[in-house]
Amino acid sequence: MDTKKTLALLQEVKDGTLTPEEAVLKLRMSPYEDLGYAKVDLHRELRQGVPEVIYGSGKTPEQIIGIASVMRENGSENILITRLSPEAAKKVEKEIPLDYDEVSRIGIAGRRAEVTSSGTIVVAAAGTSDLPVAEEAARTAEALGNRVTRLYDVGVAGLHRLLSNLDIILEARVIVAVAGMEGALASVIGGLADCPVIAVPTSVGYGANFGGLSALLSMLNSCASGVSVVNIDNGFGAGFLASRINHMGDKK
Amino acid sequence: MDTKKTLALLQEVKDGTLTPEEAVLKLRMSPYEDLGYAKVDLHRELRQGVPEVIYGSGKTPEQIIGIASVMRENGSENILITRLSPEAAKKVEKEIPLDYDEVSRIGIAGRRAEVTSSGTIVVAAAGTSDLPVAEEAARTAEALGNRVTRLYDVGVAGLHRLLSNLDIILEARVIVAVAGMEGALASVIGGLADCPVIAVPTSVGYGANFGGLSALLSMLNSCASGVSVVNIDNGFGAGFLASRINHMGDKK
Amino acid sequence: MDTKKTLALLQEVKDGTLTPEEAVLKLRMSPYEDLGYAKVDLHRELRQGVPEVIYGSGKTPEQIIGIASVMRENGSENILITRLSPEAAKKVEKEIPLDYDEVSRIGIAGRRAEVTSSGTIVVAAAGTSDLPVAEEAARTAEALGNRVTRLYDVGVAGLHRLLSNLDIILEARVIVAVAGMEGALASVIGGLADCPVIAVPTSVGYGANFGGLSALLSMLNSCASGVSVVNIDNGFGAGFLASRINHMGDKK
Amino acid sequence: MDTKKTLALLQEVKDGTLTPEEAVLKLRMSPYEDLGYAKVDLHRELRQGVPEVIYGSGKTPEQIIGIASVMRENGSENILITRLSPEAAKKVEKEIPLDYDEVSRIGIAGRRAEVTSSGTIVVAAAGTSDLPVAEEAARTAEALGNRVTRLYDVGVAGLHRLLSNLDIILEARVIVAVAGMEGALASVIGGLADCPVIAVPTSVGYGANFGGLSALLSMLNSCASGVSVVNIDNGFGAGFLASRINHMGDKK
Amino acid sequence: MDTKKTLALLQEVKDGTLTPEEAVLKLRMSPYEDLGYAKVDLHRELRQGVPEVIYGSGKTPEQIIGIASVMRENGSENILITRLSPEAAKKVEKEIPLDYDEVSRIGIAGRRAEVTSSGTIVVAAAGTSDLPVAEEAARTAEALGNRVTRLYDVGVAGLHRLLSNLDIILEARVIVAVAGMEGALASVIGGLADCPVIAVPTSVGYGANFGGLSALLSMLNSCASGVSVVNIDNGFGAGFLASRINHMGDKK
Amino acid sequence: MDTKKTLALLQEVKDGTLTPEEAVLKLRMSPYEDLGYAKVDLHRELRQGVPEVIYGSGKTPEQIIGIASVMRENGSENILITRLSPEAAKKVEKEIPLDYDEVSRIGIAGRRAEVTSSGTIVVAAAGTSDLPVAEEAARTAEALGNRVTRLYDVGVAGLHRLLSNLDIILEARVIVAVAGMEGALASVIGGLADCPVIAVPTSVGYGANFGGLSALLSMLNSCASGVSVVNIDNGFGAGFLASRINHMGDKK
Amino acid sequence: MDTKKTLALLQEVKDGTLTPEEAVLKLRMSPYEDLGYAKVDLHRELRQGVPEVIYGSGKTPEQIIGIASVMRENGSENILITRLSPEAAKKVEKEIPLDYDEVSRIGIAGRRAEVTSSGTIVVAAAGTSDLPVAEEAARTAEALGNRVTRLYDVGVAGLHRLLSNLDIILEARVIVAVAGMEGALASVIGGLADCPVIAVPTSVGYGANFGGLSALLSMLNSCASGVSVVNIDNGFGAGFLASRINHMGDKK
Amino acid sequence: MDTKKTLALLQEVKDGTLTPEEAVLKLRMSPYEDLGYAKVDLHRELRQGVPEVIYGSGKTPEQIIGIASVMRENGSENILITRLSPEAAKKVEKEIPLDYDEVSRIGIAGRRAEVTSSGTIVVAAAGTSDLPVAEEAARTAEALGNRVTRLYDVGVAGLHRLLSNLDIILEARVIVAVAGMEGALASVIGGLADCPVIAVPTSVGYGANFGGLSALLSMLNSCASGVSVVNIDNGFGAGFLASRINHMGDKK
Repeated sequence: MDTKKTLALLQEVKDGTLTPEEAVLKLRMSPYEDLGYAKVDLHRELRQGVPEVIYGSGKTPEQIIGIASVMRENGSENILITRLSPEAAKKVEKEIPLDYDEVSRIGIAGRRAEVTSSGTIVVAAAGTSDLPVAEEAARTAEALGNRVTRLYDVGVAGLHRLLSNLDIILEARVIVAVAGMEGALASVIGGLADCPVIAVPTSVGYGANFGGLSALLSMLNSCASGVSVVNIDNGFGAGFLASRINHMGDKK
Repeated sequence: MDTKKTLALLQEVKDGTLTPEEAVLKLRMSPYEDLGYAKVDLHRELRQGVPEVIYGSGKTPEQIIGIASVMRENGSENILITRLSPEAAKKVEKEIPLDYDEVSRIGIAGRRAEVTSSGTIVVAAAGTSDLPVAEEAARTAEALGNRVTRLYDVGVAGLHRLLSNLDIILEARVIVAVAGMEGALASVIGGLADCPVIAVPTSVGYGANFGGLSALLSMLNSCASGVSVVNIDNGFGAGFLASRINHMGDKK
Repeated sequence: MDTKKTLALLQEVKDGTLTPEEAVLKLRMSPYEDLGYAKVDLHRELRQGVPEVIYGSGKTPEQIIGIASVMRENGSENILITRLSPEAAKKVEKEIPLDYDEVSRIGIAGRRAEVTSSGTIVVAAAGTSDLPVAEEAARTAEALGNRVTRLYDVGVAGLHRLLSNLDIILEARVIVAVAGMEGALASVIGGLADCPVIAVPTSVGYGANFGGLSALLSMLNSCASGVSVVNIDNGFGAGFLASRINHMGDKK
Repeated sequence: MDTKKTLALLQEVKDGTLTPEEAVLKLRMSPYEDLGYAKVDLHRELRQGVPEVIYGSGKTPEQIIGIASVMRENGSENILITRLSPEAAKKVEKEIPLDYDEVSRIGIAGRRAEVTSSGTIVVAAAGTSDLPVAEEAARTAEALGNRVTRLYDVGVAGLHRLLSNLDIILEARVIVAVAGMEGALASVIGGLADCPVIAVPTSVGYGANFGGLSALLSMLNSCASGVSVVNIDNGFGAGFLASRINHMGDKK
Repeated sequence: MDTKKTLALLQEVKDGTLTPEEAVLKLRMSPYEDLGYAKVDLHRELRQGVPEVIYGSGKTPEQIIGIASVMRENGSENILITRLSPEAAKKVEKEIPLDYDEVSRIGIAGRRAEVTSSGTIVVAAAGTSDLPVAEEAARTAEALGNRVTRLYDVGVAGLHRLLSNLDIILEARVIVAVAGMEGALASVIGGLADCPVIAVPTSVGYGANFGGLSALLSMLNSCASGVSVVNIDNGFGAGFLASRINHMGDKK
Repeated sequence: MDTKKTLALLQEVKDGTLTPEEAVLKLRMSPYEDLGYAKVDLHRELRQGVPEVIYGSGKTPEQIIGIASVMRENGSENILITRLSPEAAKKVEKEIPLDYDEVSRIGIAGRRAEVTSSGTIVVAAAGTSDLPVAEEAARTAEALGNRVTRLYDVGVAGLHRLLSNLDIILEARVIVAVAGMEGALASVIGGLADCPVIAVPTSVGYGANFGGLSALLSMLNSCASGVSVVNIDNGFGAGFLASRINHMGDKK
Repeated sequence: MDTKKTLALLQEVKDGTLTPEEAVLKLRMSPYEDLGYAKVDLHRELRQGVPEVIYGSGKTPEQIIGIASVMRENGSENILITRLSPEAAKKVEKEIPLDYDEVSRIGIAGRRAEVTSSGTIVVAAAGTSDLPVAEEAARTAEALGNRVTRLYDVGVAGLHRLLSNLDIILEARVIVAVAGMEGALASVIGGLADCPVIAVPTSVGYGANFGGLSALLSMLNSCASGVSVVNIDNGFGAGFLASRINHMGDKK
Repeated sequence: MDTKKTLALLQEVKDGTLTPEEAVLKLRMSPYEDLGYAKVDLHRELRQGVPEVIYGSGKTPEQIIGIASVMRENGSENILITRLSPEAAKKVEKEIPLDYDEVSRIGIAGRRAEVTSSGTIVVAAAGTSDLPVAEEAARTAEALGNRVTRLYDVGVAGLHRLLSNLDIILEARVIVAVAGMEGALASVIGGLADCPVIAVPTSVGYGANFGGLSALLSMLNSCASGVSVVNIDNGFGAGFLASRINHMGDKK
């Protein structure tokens, strides 16, 4: 779809090695395999530099196995499956070798990732209840080749727990700040750090928390610069983005 | 209305100094004067230990003058008028001696209050834009006889500004924490202080701030104990409650 | 972290009894013990005058036992565990002596608290369905050393039930007003009392109650002065704050 | 459109005094006059026992004059115009004799209404700022032939002002309870009265009032039975319904 | 609490038949019996002309039995229990004779009510799914002595079903309009009828229905006059209010 | 109810073949059969050209069987039952021959529909999790006589999957665009297609998705012209409307 | 961008009449002209069969003139400008011949459109205040070559006004139903008509209307089939879609 | 405040060159200058590598001048003032040399920034009305030393305008995607790009846009990975974060 590929294809057409009809066919056929219920993207690793990720929620174990199988047949060596319930994991691992973690609900089908960036991602979480989301971020980042430092239970109500780890904050290349309730952790870290901070609101809390709305709004309104926000409980998204930023420090 | 007064009244009826009809009349007539558009409560100073407050918003200058005049005729020496626009203040001060402050929009009709509590109320504000609300709290507290320490522009994005004033935080008897945007100041102060913290969300901000909703939810969900919340922009309410708590330290 | 401690530490450094490296280490190490999933704050009783509280919701029984054990090993004699389900309580009390109450879902590990304030906290609840939240407030306050008077089922639809107990209202040092539905109890009590009123909206109700939103907004907009609000169903927060205010009357 | 009329019409057709085509025409033509921008309902006074009401908001003065003129030509002697701005009122009264009140923004074109019910409607308002809405209700009810008692500034923060007027509450046939902020007045009156209570939330307040939402939700969740609610600031709707109920006491 | 009783009591005090202390005691003791978890109002039938109602939701069967027993011991012959689950009903009817209906979840302990008003209440429901709420309204009204006509499945998408029953609409003294989804039934009935219409939004629907919010807002914004609204799914409230209005037609 | 029928009826009355009373009776009796809990519309197929649809949610299997039976007795040959749970389906198919699909939860009682329009409806879905809603739309359209092309898993994050099927998009007569999460599919298709696009937001997603609100708002705010929206998860409504539009291309 | 064009282009490349580089250039250059602040789409009339529309809101008069000029230079003869304020219109018509209507705020630059469909679009509006939105829909449809019948002030509170025009409803090919407040008009028309109904909620109303939310939710939850919804006040979108559907009846 | 500085300070204390009291004083005094209404942070450039930014909204021109002056006296050469109204800009530039841009409302006091990163930031905007926010992002990024490519009016309704610029998308190091209405641009770009995408929802739109909520929710729910979100209309925040990420590519 990008310029260079289009040019190459057109050149083949001009050279006569490809008829126009074949070219159209090729443009259409290559990038995915159609399973009916899913169109599996087989070129994403090439196009975006990361393996395909299967979002497990709302898919049957059979659908997950089907998608993963097609990917593996096409050479994927490292498939990340998120939001995979323990029940579904049991069914999947009968068909596909799977490294499954119950806290984060992440399953990895394939070889363990090597660390491919010189920087460190810090995943900070405000409370013990935020761990599932924090672990989703941390394990996603690790699966994508990052070194991760975990900094858990550092909520702002006990500021000394965070300040005692100031050196970890200052040496990070990216920080993922995970917090529910009032979500103030993102602002406090944002004021201390000089690297990008990815805030993840969680649905931890009750009452006027409204399913994570309080932390979400709090983080969007952060008075600290350099903070951006992903969806409530979206540990995967934060880990993915952190990896992308962390690898930039090495790319060019 | 309370037990002791009811007993006294009944005793007078028993003694024959009061007919039952007169007693009913008395119960009904005394506590306020009816201006049609307002029923001015003349006994609140006695009942609740503080002067009457006139909430200026939504009242015409003429109504404010009318209410204040009845109060002054009945002996009130210290009347607090909140949410008083500069235009209304000009009209009011032609009829009644008024000490008016434009930032907080508070007018005080009467003598200056003496400090009647040995404790100190700290009013902390996150940003310069929060000053009108913070000043409403501070001036309300002063008018009610409190010593007030102002701690402005100590938002959590620059944590050192707050931490440098830790001694002020630790010596307060009550703290009013005023913040808009993500309202994280309340949680951070709540985690540091060992006195009651009254959080005042402000409507300062834009976008997903939704008129103060972000700070409000943030403060209600504070992970720090000892924090309670008043309405958005309700500096008066915070100052009033702070005064009530501050005077408790001296009462018994 | 506070001024006096920093000065003392610096003095020791100056005296040569502490190397700078040791000082940094000390600042960092002392205040908590790191269990990985939690950083247990061992100095809070010293710093804030109250025992550590474990918020049970979202923690596994194993995590709760782990945290409580560390605290007990460090000398805590009175540990409050809130939002503890009956199932979790059963597991916890096998490891740790526990006084558990099913209505409020509060467990207390340790000696029974003595009354340490001369004042009384009144916990008023609008309806029978509000009892779990009211009891959370009442038991929290008792665990923190307060005398508590319960005033239940005094909702404003039957005003005489509240007015008949006016003397209890008038003699309180702090009042916790617990109500769901329209939450009007807080305003009515706020208008009668001359002490601080902590309003607790509950999620009791249905339909346009929206999980407690109606009572929350109602209480935030109270036309009575001296009322502040905590999160929906946050009985613990109200009991904690009430205790802090109640002890002020004795402190200085 | 109702059974009796349909029967009468069909009888005429059977009798031959009306052709079927004429009957269809009649069914279609009679009930309104079409001005293009409005279809003026000329039979409502007959059908529903009350004069036509013109909702002034969103209509130009010219449109209002046009509608009122058609009505007057068709015999309407008592036309109620609500939400009429002072500017529009000035234009309208040049063309049509108008009795206009600035507080309620109601204009009445026609003769003054006589009292046609033996009962009394009480309009109670919590604060001085609620007067415009309360007056809209009161004047609407008066225009529809009711005796109205006004009870203003009886908000629940000063309960004695309401309790002193308990006899007025108890003698009402219908009560309209107008309140902004937390809207608790409706529940308190609902608990005291034994007649229908129509609650009108107003947009008076600020912050977490959210334009009247707090009072609206509060009133919908009233724990008192016998209370129903109309739209925020809908004084007209409350006055209209109160009149309908009040006249029932005399009808049969 | 009302004027006449107060006068009578004061007269007794004056006559010396009552000491002031006894009078205070009497004022306080009479109106309810305190069960700890509930203050049972024993005079409501006298004061408001209807039997006590027990709102079953959020109460244990034991609490319901306790409250009902006290009432029966004090002479209540007709107790209405709403929101009573089938499981709770089974427990209650072991202790107290109970007439229970599963659709409306209403239980009646006591004699069947006689019809005490000459008017008719029409309960109209838009769809089959709205029946539980409609039946709650209908059975409440019947228990309070009203004749009720049910008009079910008359939603506006099939307008002829409603128009075919126009005579029932026109002969009603009060109409309860029950509808979920877009709640348009209330406006259409409001435009046809000339009696008070009580609109009950239900939570029937899905998606942008948001638990009944769509019908609630729709009904509050009704362009038809004479319509007021109760809480979502509040069939009881509508039936209670309808009964109060219906009995007015006979009272005076 | 329409003009022609009314005229015919009136003509019969004029001719004396019908008494006025009979005419009224006829107007009232014909269009539906009253089952108490439902008024089954027997003329809809005539009036609106489509068979009756039974919305299964909130109805008991018994009610569904009752309604379907009446319809079948009156000649309906093709009855669509939506939102039918597998459990209910099992009960229904014991009484009535039923073609049931678990994914879409649609049951069809009767003959399979023939294709009655020359156009094609495209049902496009963004992700695998959106399939139940997409299938509800597709099967509804098929049951109403349409040819349907399914285009699944074409979410905008992998734009090439959609662009590769551009010819399908361009040849459609109507497109149903089904998407959860951010719902961007509707706008992208709306910008590419030149036929009406019916957007169906789904509740697929989590966190700030708020039960489908994000996709709903996104679709309502689409910057592409020619897009309209139905309720969240309303596959049936989209399929029904698509069928109506698709048949227009053949009608006149 | 579509298949046929791509094939043609590739054919030219194969034929050697176009170099691959030129082809890429051509793909990129043709479809729009870049003004910096806007990329004017010059081929939309070809691609989608309708002229370009300029959404005037948020654009300066200068930007509007700039965009329209480029379009006219490229042969556009019929340009629709929506949401054009009277002030902006005055500036625009100095540069470009403009037919401007103040009610709908629509300006048309170019020749008057001819009627190009045999069907009729009915635009129905509930109240006089809904006219600006209704006119935006009507004029848009007319500018796109449709015959439009206006049916204004037919809100459901006076159902006879709508029923009297039933023949117009029944003969429409598409209906646009415009309503604010409770938006019930869409459901009632949806139940009567057998053609697609496009519902347009308006922001007309106040209080719990919340800027059009009540009508929006009402319309989305319509119990009538065949109804879809566009954004609040989006008369243009409804008119555009109605035109697209109306022309389908003639297309194939 | 960080470890190294603390160690250095403690070393000085140990060496006797600093008394403990002086050390405490130093810790407290250095980082800011207190103007009463603001605490100007003079070390941020050192600590976080960027100049101080003054958020102009809610500050008086006098306050802005005061803050900027203190900064300039302390050596700041490049001060960014955001949300500066034209009126305030006029007053400020009388005192301080200012480069002001009306579209973005950004003023820069000081020297023009040099480009200090080898990467490029692309700022893409969906529509002409989004320009003010897009320009705020672009100018912020430029002021912080970045090369910026603007890509405006590339909304998804005309997908070819975006696809024609695919090479710009693919060569970016960071992309800021600015869009109002349905905000779909972020997801589409997120699916095409392999670099971090910062999404900025704008308040552009109307109706169910709810002040930017639709775009905000849409972006938070993006199905594309690598996308994070800042507050509605927060062009500054996006530009600042983009700069931070862009400079990472060069840092290590």
